[in-house]
Amino acid sequence: MSMKLNCDMGESFGAWSMSNDAEIMPYVDMSNIACGFHASDPQVMARTVALAVQHNVAIGAHPGYPDLQGFGRKEMVFSFDELVNIIQYQIGALQAICVANNTSVSYVKPHGALYNTMMRDSDVFRAVLTAVSTVKPKMPLMIMATAETSASHQVYVALAQDLGVPLLFEAFCDRAYTDEGALQSRQIKGAVYDDVDRIVNQATQLITQQSITSCSGKTLSVKADSICIHGDGELALLSVKRIRNVLRAHTLLETK
Amino acid sequence: MSMKLNCDMGESFGAWSMSNDAEIMPYVDMSNIACGFHASDPQVMARTVALAVQHNVAIGAHPGYPDLQGFGRKEMVFSFDELVNIIQYQIGALQAICVANNTSVSYVKPHGALYNTMMRDSDVFRAVLTAVSTVKPKMPLMIMATAETSASHQVYVALAQDLGVPLLFEAFCDRAYTDEGALQSRQIKGAVYDDVDRIVNQATQLITQQSITSCSGKTLSVKADSICIHGDGELALLSVKRIRNVLRAHTLLETK
Amino acid sequence: MSMKLNCDMGESFGAWSMSNDAEIMPYVDMSNIACGFHASDPQVMARTVALAVQHNVAIGAHPGYPDLQGFGRKEMVFSFDELVNIIQYQIGALQAICVANNTSVSYVKPHGALYNTMMRDSDVFRAVLTAVSTVKPKMPLMIMATAETSASHQVYVALAQDLGVPLLFEAFCDRAYTDEGALQSRQIKGAVYDDVDRIVNQATQLITQQSITSCSGKTLSVKADSICIHGDGELALLSVKRIRNVLRAHTLLETK
Amino acid sequence: MSMKLNCDMGESFGAWSMSNDAEIMPYVDMSNIACGFHASDPQVMARTVALAVQHNVAIGAHPGYPDLQGFGRKEMVFSFDELVNIIQYQIGALQAICVANNTSVSYVKPHGALYNTMMRDSDVFRAVLTAVSTVKPKMPLMIMATAETSASHQVYVALAQDLGVPLLFEAFCDRAYTDEGALQSRQIKGAVYDDVDRIVNQATQLITQQSITSCSGKTLSVKADSICIHGDGELALLSVKRIRNVLRAHTLLETK
Repeated sequence: MSMKLNCDMGESFGAWSMSNDAEIMPYVDMSNIACGFHASDPQVMARTVALAVQHNVAIGAHPGYPDLQGFGRKEMVFSFDELVNIIQYQIGALQAICVANNTSVSYVKPHGALYNTMMRDSDVFRAVLTAVSTVKPKMPLMIMATAETSASHQVYVALAQDLGVPLLFEAFCDRAYTDEGALQSRQIKGAVYDDVDRIVNQATQLITQQSITSCSGKTLSVKADSICIHGDGELALLSVKRIRNVLRAHTLLETK
Repeated sequence: MSMKLNCDMGESFGAWSMSNDAEIMPYVDMSNIACGFHASDPQVMARTVALAVQHNVAIGAHPGYPDLQGFGRKEMVFSFDELVNIIQYQIGALQAICVANNTSVSYVKPHGALYNTMMRDSDVFRAVLTAVSTVKPKMPLMIMATAETSASHQVYVALAQDLGVPLLFEAFCDRAYTDEGALQSRQIKGAVYDDVDRIVNQATQLITQQSITSCSGKTLSVKADSICIHGDGELALLSVKRIRNVLRAHTLLETK
Repeated sequence: MSMKLNCDMGESFGAWSMSNDAEIMPYVDMSNIACGFHASDPQVMARTVALAVQHNVAIGAHPGYPDLQGFGRKEMVFSFDELVNIIQYQIGALQAICVANNTSVSYVKPHGALYNTMMRDSDVFRAVLTAVSTVKPKMPLMIMATAETSASHQVYVALAQDLGVPLLFEAFCDRAYTDEGALQSRQIKGAVYDDVDRIVNQATQLITQQSITSCSGKTLSVKADSICIHGDGELALLSVKRIRNVLRAHTLLETK
Repeated sequence: MSMKLNCDMGESFGAWSMSNDAEIMPYVDMSNIACGFHASDPQVMARTVALAVQHNVAIGAHPGYPDLQGFGRKEMVFSFDELVNIIQYQIGALQAICVANNTSVSYVKPHGALYNTMMRDSDVFRAVLTAVSTVKPKMPLMIMATAETSASHQVYVALAQDLGVPLLFEAFCDRAYTDEGALQSRQIKGAVYDDVDRIVNQATQLITQQSITSCSGKTLSVKADSICIHGDGELALLSVKRIRNVLRAHTLLETK
């Protein structure tokens, strides 16, 4: 299976726009669509689903914490049940809008603080798995690709298997990685790449060699199903177009 | 088909309680469950769905305007598309929580200002029908029973048929009706009954004679599939128990 | 007293930006700062107040309906008391942030649907006046300049006098006016000017001749204290710079 | 100065009621009035301020985290500036409603998770002090009375002095204390008293002996300016009436 490009979409809200979904959508395979808790609203969701359908792009629910002002990036403490319910709610809301557009939510990827907390707290991960598995059997959940040999990777894979949730792993082409395979903190300069060549190179290495070069120059094996591309900022469109070309060339090569 | 009792449920929000769902639920057939826009939250929804399942009560989505502070009773002006999308969103959110409880939304009944506006503005009615029909084929919509000979009744029935939405008609046992078959305005004293006997009598007349006696004493033919009972207030529990007994006796009689 | 330029400011929200306040602020005299109900949040308010202080621009509270998703442009029906309270609340919130920046709210101008409703419904106008007068004696309220000979103008002036609220009148330089001195509906093409020359010309006529030329070519006398300039869109910065120059030239002339 | 009774008030929201403010208000000296972020709305605030004025009860701003659904009890992480601004905003909003009622906010007491975090994180405490001191010079802040010999007590007193904020100390009459003078966790049975005698006894000991008996029987010196009484629950009214009588008797004794 070839590498997929995924991008957060539908993060406008009411009169406020974010990113240029219409320009990016034609170049990605999977759109993670916000569900109204950290961004978006029913109108934006309907517009974004229609856009994904038009470009034949898979739709993922992108649930977040209920925090519009903080864009779902603020740490909040929820009980297990609360988490399960707010995630079910958001997936269902998007699913109804998908059904009205003759399509369907085909995977789930949490947003912002919920994503980060899920990756470091296995109880939160279990809550996410529970929500996903109860809403639709076999619905895949996208999480961050970590070293397959790490203890936490194995724990997470086992938990997902227990609950019958297929996992999709994603890697980031515009973020620096530590030697341990974690994302470099945004506090550290250079953690987020601002150079298109660098972004495209990291994506190319992920596609062709299934690896990433860490900050210190170490080669990390990263088995990812998908590369996450950010849709905002000026570099987004340039990067996604070039990465799409790399992917096309690579797929041609593979299928020969 | 026998007359069903329906009641608005799940209208608590966070730390704030409303009504006594646990006490009322055993006596009703259909629970209209709020979806988080005018009342409720994902926790309350999960709790209420579980309660309905426990008592084998049908679950209806009860969407409202996005106005927690005004409890969805405030008039707000939406475009057609906005209305369609906020209703789809709410039905879907509840549906996901139902699926997680091995049940399903089986009908839709709008709330408060959305219900009232729908009953007097056929464009709003069309938006509701569009939302309901696109989320699930053949999903019934519950609206207010009006005189079958009235022009608006015929218009509404035709619109629903066009969009393939079965209609359920409800009548109110604790509200005074005008001679034209409309609800007496809440501004007028006596519009909302505060006497259990009166409530039970109006319900009994609806069940046994399919009619209501208007304020002025006129007998109105009212063909209702369901009687709406209010779940808050001290009279609620007393009324619903007695009406349930009336229904049981009447059903026994019918089936002999 | 010379003509003042006023502009809506601080309409970003959380992660979402709107307009370029930092670029526009140096060229205006009065900034209408959103108070968190239709736009803005406490962070944005603090940032915008600091910017106004830096450029020595007067600060007006810009209260709106509680409707972030609709940007305060959606019609909503409130009771008199509700309106009074939501306006007091918003003015007070901004005032506290002003005090923390050693400044003060010096006038009030309602936003969007609240502004429009206030201009056509004298009960809503009275609610606004009541809120303004009870929060701070002699606090001016900015409303739309209408023909001084019109009945409604006289009613509004009398109401404001009764409640001790000084009125400021504003005119619009980028909107077409009807022969009756109302704003042309946004539904009609050309209602909002998209040509810098046209905007600057209407402002110049307001400044130098206290009049506006209506759609049909009629000259309307418009006695305005302030011209409202929109801060979003590409034309905003170009327009405000040129209007500022017109004002400077005119003031020099006047004071000679 | 005699001991004051303080109570959280105005925690209803829209159609949802909480506590019985009208019954409790006559018996307290200080009302901590919610400001719309964790509870309340402009209508409820106006009603509660009027009630406090009627009974000559001091008004304190009771700001909380922006989390209606979680009633401000959910942990949330804010930056220093964000905290300062959301607290200023809430105090100002209440102040405007007070001014409209010819009264004024006379102190500040944070709510729920904000209160708890402030008591254990001195950075959050500094943010609260900064907000309070910038909104009104010499405005007192109410915090929890801790052992005067503890290191943190001394740090907190010094910080407040630096920023010119007078501190008021409160103790709780219906909560069990640990030997270290902290509140027993709500997770532990018996942490919240459900017995009126026990509540009144703890209040009496605070009033007459300035001490509390900890869970294990140790006598803790607690110098409090105010006793916090909870306004919800059936015991609230019974307790507050009896504590008011204890206070009256004690004050008579003192003033002889």
